[in-house]
Amino acid sequence: MNVHLPGLSRVAVCGGTHGNELSGVYLVREMLRVGTGDEDVSMQTVLSNPLATELCRRYLDTDLNRCFTHAALNGPLPDPAPYEIVRARELNAMLGPKGSPRAVDLVCDLHNSTSNMGLCLINFSDCDWISLHIYRHLQREMPDIPVRYIHLDVPDKDSFSVASVGKHGFALEIGPQPHGVVRSNIYSAMKEGLQHILDWVRLFNSGVVFKGGPVDVFTTVGHVDYPRDGDTQNITAAIHPQLQDRDFCLLHPGDPLFQTFSGQSVSYKGSQALYPFFINECAYYEKGVALYLATKRTFTIPAVRVLKEDYQDVRFQSEEEEE
Amino acid sequence: MNVHLPGLSRVAVCGGTHGNELSGVYLVREMLRVGTGDEDVSMQTVLSNPLATELCRRYLDTDLNRCFTHAALNGPLPDPAPYEIVRARELNAMLGPKGSPRAVDLVCDLHNSTSNMGLCLINFSDCDWISLHIYRHLQREMPDIPVRYIHLDVPDKDSFSVASVGKHGFALEIGPQPHGVVRSNIYSAMKEGLQHILDWVRLFNSGVVFKGGPVDVFTTVGHVDYPRDGDTQNITAAIHPQLQDRDFCLLHPGDPLFQTFSGQSVSYKGSQALYPFFINECAYYEKGVALYLATKRTFTIPAVRVLKEDYQDVRFQSEEEEE
Repeated sequence: MNVHLPGLSRVAVCGGTHGNELSGVYLVREMLRVGTGDEDVSMQTVLSNPLATELCRRYLDTDLNRCFTHAALNGPLPDPAPYEIVRARELNAMLGPKGSPRAVDLVCDLHNSTSNMGLCLINFSDCDWISLHIYRHLQREMPDIPVRYIHLDVPDKDSFSVASVGKHGFALEIGPQPHGVVRSNIYSAMKEGLQHILDWVRLFNSGVVFKGGPVDVFTTVGHVDYPRDGDTQNITAAIHPQLQDRDFCLLHPGDPLFQTFSGQSVSYKGSQALYPFFINECAYYEKGVALYLATKRTFTIPAVRVLKEDYQDVRFQSEEEEE
Repeated sequence: MNVHLPGLSRVAVCGGTHGNELSGVYLVREMLRVGTGDEDVSMQTVLSNPLATELCRRYLDTDLNRCFTHAALNGPLPDPAPYEIVRARELNAMLGPKGSPRAVDLVCDLHNSTSNMGLCLINFSDCDWISLHIYRHLQREMPDIPVRYIHLDVPDKDSFSVASVGKHGFALEIGPQPHGVVRSNIYSAMKEGLQHILDWVRLFNSGVVFKGGPVDVFTTVGHVDYPRDGDTQNITAAIHPQLQDRDFCLLHPGDPLFQTFSGQSVSYKGSQALYPFFINECAYYEKGVALYLATKRTFTIPAVRVLKEDYQDVRFQSEEEEE
């Protein structure tokens, strides 16, 4: 049984939401330079935080990618207004308004991490069939890089990201890459991933049926902060060398977690084996997060095809059906 | 024939000269916490740029590690005075004055790089026997990490670094590590390297003869900037994937150098094979440096021992002679 879903006629690609995550910055600039040349899909290519990008900083006043809650978008504007709160409202007017029928159909927001994340789709929903089918498509098309789906389990009204402005949307997170640096391999993986995403959108719009099947989804259940000095709040340990770069490898109770700056091991005290990710992400030191922890579930998503009235292509497509 | 050199009774270890190079920041904080407990050597442990460290930025107003030229230390103070110019004068008063007999005997200034640098000693001199013997000592004691010596070939009066304030001194550069991140393996290598340096100083002060022998020295001869857009000055290419992380591997004319953001290769146009290093260092994008280029020379350094009147240990030391 196919789920019939509206076509995706308006897609936004955002980069530089964090101004020092350079793969997205340079990919968006490249797209703005060459144009998208797509007849079927209306594409908006957006440099989300131009001032932070100019300074090669994550943000000026506050993290833009936390400014898209209902409260931040619609509450009274603080005085003085943080730049990113103002910019979030501009982006919401351009791509949304969030939650309205006028919002773009799909937002793909490009990010980098210093963590060994491979390629991740990060979404507030675990039943957004569009994002989950794109996820499966990337897994099929990019066998050389691990592709994962992270479900941020927060109530709808608290969804906070640029991507949450679209009817569908996700952050496309790729690492490891130091912030303020662009590495060709990571840039190329992002470019290729985005190409596959846009290809999927075109196929979907043209009427291709995408068969259902199993997906693995990582759902966040918590995070762990670094050990810190009680007085200064400075961290007193780094991620343990045996854990560093092992994002998405199961962490068991008793496994080494940190190594203090004087050389002692600190083990994971949780009662349950969980999947760590965003291990030693640069931007999360200030947020008090050394790593996130997730459960992994496998479930089956339904087949999808575009609603008949939204077909953009009348050719018979069954030969192109996947798997 | 031994060169007899004055003892090294006063040593300074600096970290956080760049506030987002965290191995040095946390190693200096750890040393300040536990103390050095050294009877033979007077140690000063210095967090060089505390304000930048607090903000986890390279610098506030200008790069501190370029502020130690004769002109910057002694010229008229600009109004308003950049924080780092003022701080450089404080550090010069504390550890110098540069070029004077009162300057500390050895400065070891701790740095990190996003480049695959291994462990490097960076010095303005290629005939500082103390630094070169420490270099050989690190190569012997740390066989698991490549240890190299970079000679910055600029006139004495233009030497610009914190380390140039000491009678002897070098930057101890370790990578790869993203700025704003501390990785246990890099932190541990820095800690171990510093321990070996201080061990060498004690052995030298105690009268041990360090035999001469061959050393490889990389001398900078130039640098290459990224391809840039003529109008915006934005970079239009990243380091080629075949060159990325291959610091200190010979680059031949015609070898791939960059990959543009639209996917074309750009090759190295130089007429001479040279050794690239600081490949894709984050902090050098703004300096217009994609990589430095060096020649490599091998030459023999003389045996050294401390001047007889500076002996700190009267025990007979010949059993401890190295090699």
